[in-house]
Amino acid sequence: MNRLFFQPHQAGLSKVEAAEHTLRNINPDVSFETHNYNITTLDNFTHFMERLSHGGIAEGKPVDLVLSCVDNFEARMAINAACNELGQVWMESGVSENAVSGHIQLIIPGETACFACAPPLVVATNIDEKTLKREGVCAASLPTTMGVVAGVLVQNVLKYLLKFGSVSYYLGYNAMQDFFPTMAMKANTQCNDRHCRRQQDEYKKREAERPKVEVVQEEEVAVVHEDNEWGIELVSEEANEDTQAAAAAALADLPEGIAAAYTIPVVNTDAGETVEETEQSLDDLMAQMRKL
Amino acid sequence: MNRLFFQPHQAGLSKVEAAEHTLRNINPDVSFETHNYNITTLDNFTHFMERLSHGGIAEGKPVDLVLSCVDNFEARMAINAACNELGQVWMESGVSENAVSGHIQLIIPGETACFACAPPLVVATNIDEKTLKREGVCAASLPTTMGVVAGVLVQNVLKYLLKFGSVSYYLGYNAMQDFFPTMAMKANTQCNDRHCRRQQDEYKKREAERPKVEVVQEEEVAVVHEDNEWGIELVSEEANEDTQAAAAAALADLPEGIAAAYTIPVVNTDAGETVEETEQSLDDLMAQMRKL
Repeated sequence: MNRLFFQPHQAGLSKVEAAEHTLRNINPDVSFETHNYNITTLDNFTHFMERLSHGGIAEGKPVDLVLSCVDNFEARMAINAACNELGQVWMESGVSENAVSGHIQLIIPGETACFACAPPLVVATNIDEKTLKREGVCAASLPTTMGVVAGVLVQNVLKYLLKFGSVSYYLGYNAMQDFFPTMAMKANTQCNDRHCRRQQDEYKKREAERPKVEVVQEEEVAVVHEDNEWGIELVSEEANEDTQAAAAAALADLPEGIAAAYTIPVVNTDAGETVEETEQSLDDLMAQMRKL
Repeated sequence: MNRLFFQPHQAGLSKVEAAEHTLRNINPDVSFETHNYNITTLDNFTHFMERLSHGGIAEGKPVDLVLSCVDNFEARMAINAACNELGQVWMESGVSENAVSGHIQLIIPGETACFACAPPLVVATNIDEKTLKREGVCAASLPTTMGVVAGVLVQNVLKYLLKFGSVSYYLGYNAMQDFFPTMAMKANTQCNDRHCRRQQDEYKKREAERPKVEVVQEEEVAVVHEDNEWGIELVSEEANEDTQAAAAAALADLPEGIAAAYTIPVVNTDAGETVEETEQSLDDLMAQMRKL
């Protein structure tokens, strides 16, 4: 974000102040409310939750959407925990440490995978490091990559809020090859976050209560191999979504160019804190993600 | 461009002035040279050619690269004519009139198709117009689409000038589906622009003069149908690149999601003017292209 907002005459301002000044100059008709703090501390997290619940355009109502443009894993997990608890739809975004890939992800609590359901996904770049790191060429900070990721993020926001086009659940960007993988991942019934599991139950209830629409549609079953002299059809096995293996299976089926940032450790599903602690390698995660 | 640069306090400035002011604020270390004129008139075109030839960073030398962000077909054809005459590499960019698609294209005179070799390519969006045009929703001007196209354009510039990653010859953007088709198209030996044909001859000469590098690579021939009881292999026919049909054939093989803006009319190859006239439906073309 600092690379997209900061201008030389703003030296000395915090990133949050500079962002507000720049945006206010671009559009003075927008109302801004800024809080320059670390959302992972208890007091700030409580305040953050309160503003998500009551800081919407309509007085005292929840916000419409949360956009995550943070530069570390703890901050992402705090947003994830808050949005799961509130059932708040949010969009995550990030750019890789090597600056040549990025992604956006739409998280609808209870419906799509949250950040505790499955490891964050990163875009593989197949980079020959020799071509990236050489004298006089700084590849570690590209506002172009950030601009493209910010552009597809806000485009997704417009499509979601104004209801046009197909809203992307996950859109990756591999800048080296101009490759943009997409995918979608369901919530994991064994998710570590109890609020995510509660949202999944509520989502199932809402789906069950919806008036049934008669859909005349043939169920298509993928035929693995069609030709053999006995006419036998092999049908691809469906992953059992009721086990922890579901997340792993989903990850095994990742489209070309998308990889998990880490493998899932076996965790206790009883963690009940508001901001969940993690023992995964934060250095690794932070090295793979950075703020817009 | 006006939607990316103009700020309310700049009301009254020309687009060119506003762009310079905004860019200078972002980076005061960059040198700008602005000319606010119509490049399709003879005097301005001559001046434009002179600045391309002698306006580079090194005193009196040509520029490194030309970026086209114009909003009409005549201006694009003027840039195309100038760059063909000078052998100047350039990149074209555009956003569709309905604001939900765009593209960038790299043109290396003599090597890749120029704007006279083949019709400009546009990205198909398969839009249900009902979902786009409705009360209260303005879809005709999206700075998000322009931001994404500008981002991938400048990313391509960095890759080209700093020599990293794969430089895209053509990258489309379908915002409705988050689909990004890519392709490449060779120059048409029957191109309408004599300078393009001259550049093709010079490119062939340069290629022939290059020291041969021994490449140990098996020549792969696409087998159309492998299985038959006589072991006969059908090999796909290669398009004859020495005929006007080459362009049509290339267009017939366009990847999913890319279409030609118009079909090629039969034209006299003897046109010798510096700025070539066109009798194609400009209204149609202008409706399909607009400036960043």
